[in-house]
Amino acid sequence: MKVIKSSLILGQKLKSLKRQGKSVGFVPTMGALHAGHLSLIREAGKENKAVVVSIFVNPAQFGPREDLKKYPRPLKKDLLLCQKAGVGYVFLPQEKDMYPEDFATYVNVRGLSEVLCGKSRPGHFQGVATVVNKLFNIIQPDRAYFGQKDAQQAVIIKKMVSDLNMPVKIKVMPTKREQGGLALSSRNAYLNSKERQDALVLSKALDLAQLLIKGGAKDANRITSRMKQLISQKKSARVDYIAIVNAKNLMPLRKIAQGCLIALAVRIGKTRLIDNIFVN
Amino acid sequence: MKVIKSSLILGQKLKSLKRQGKSVGFVPTMGALHAGHLSLIREAGKENKAVVVSIFVNPAQFGPREDLKKYPRPLKKDLLLCQKAGVGYVFLPQEKDMYPEDFATYVNVRGLSEVLCGKSRPGHFQGVATVVNKLFNIIQPDRAYFGQKDAQQAVIIKKMVSDLNMPVKIKVMPTKREQGGLALSSRNAYLNSKERQDALVLSKALDLAQLLIKGGAKDANRITSRMKQLISQKKSARVDYIAIVNAKNLMPLRKIAQGCLIALAVRIGKTRLIDNIFVN
Repeated sequence: MKVIKSSLILGQKLKSLKRQGKSVGFVPTMGALHAGHLSLIREAGKENKAVVVSIFVNPAQFGPREDLKKYPRPLKKDLLLCQKAGVGYVFLPQEKDMYPEDFATYVNVRGLSEVLCGKSRPGHFQGVATVVNKLFNIIQPDRAYFGQKDAQQAVIIKKMVSDLNMPVKIKVMPTKREQGGLALSSRNAYLNSKERQDALVLSKALDLAQLLIKGGAKDANRITSRMKQLISQKKSARVDYIAIVNAKNLMPLRKIAQGCLIALAVRIGKTRLIDNIFVN
Repeated sequence: MKVIKSSLILGQKLKSLKRQGKSVGFVPTMGALHAGHLSLIREAGKENKAVVVSIFVNPAQFGPREDLKKYPRPLKKDLLLCQKAGVGYVFLPQEKDMYPEDFATYVNVRGLSEVLCGKSRPGHFQGVATVVNKLFNIIQPDRAYFGQKDAQQAVIIKKMVSDLNMPVKIKVMPTKREQGGLALSSRNAYLNSKERQDALVLSKALDLAQLLIKGGAKDANRITSRMKQLISQKKSARVDYIAIVNAKNLMPLRKIAQGCLIALAVRIGKTRLIDNIFVN
């Protein structure tokens, strides 16, 4: 496994791989790797000759009052996990290279970026789209892998790739969960043991929605009300949003439709968690 | 010469070229080709195995009251010129493919896009950056060629390529001029014969600036005032801006410095023309 900080050197190495006709799979991460990331890496390994993982806590996607500073950075452990998982190249971009002082270019996916998480995190998805655009240009992967847990991010990246004709295939892999149902997230590390118990309410609320829908419920408002009710039973929980939307354009739906997305963001104490399911 | 409308087919053809190690030079145009474009094509031919020219009047870079509809589109003549010039591939993107109804992704180069021409053409450089980003992703050229006549455009494209780590080298070629000094532009076709005479005043004003500077003038305001004076002698002329700026960041300069850019935009009748020189 090669650990590379320079985009130029990485670019050269990958270029020579591609000249030999070898496919490249790419897993962009902010580190603090968990079983969710590892499932993306595993899939990338199955479908490509070489796997590149980037680890970069991207400042452009954090708001001024968000958790950029305290975001976990267990680099040694991450590198060990990558090595075990058979990663070929770990890319560790340096902030001063990614965003030099006079950096000025941003990619915006309009409409999709202002709803759901975008409402309480203005600028977040501009930061995501911009850094992923840069990483795709540096690495030029054949395929790139994202987790369904960040559903809106996946929709936005797919849209960017399609709108800007980027030559990469986007693969979205299912959310990995702990035994109680809690979706794996690097931010779960912020939770104390009481909060970790309370945090189960996110997936429980999604289970409830699924149950109601199986029982014939169609009205989106009624379903989200019931979910809100359930979540409000936890004192540490504060709902940011619960939404039932078209899974492609993220527009709100009044009635349940096949393939729609139920997504929510809830603060547990000071930690903002997200989760979602498709209705099938 | 192959004329191709589908980005997928063009992408495949170029991919197979690149697999053979052949370099690709790209000249993006809006058609109505003149000797300026042809000099870009010639240079691309010298430096690359294959030359791609795109012809696309990009609606995203025209304001609602601008000349999108009347912009000249002499396609047959353009194709003949390309063929004569030894172009390998002409790409004719279709508007519905480039901007499908739900198109939502835009590239912005902040700071550089709001000054000079950006002031009177809001959104123009967002449209330019976005379409060039798309074309680069479709064609993946080794080198792309732009004219110095559109100085701000060249600075913005270079900045986008650098900020977004796009794997392409940008080449900027000198402005081509008619005998009287008028910079070649597809928009010169809008001028009647009286206006064409008056339009000489743009390059004459730049000549005056150069003369003043050779004579020791340093103060930017004084120089631009003298230029304005000269231009105002033509009744059909209305100055949009005259600016002396740093050639890299386009920031206004008070004093002449080596390598600075003197740029101006002037309406001659209803036709907005631009021109510029470097001070050396």
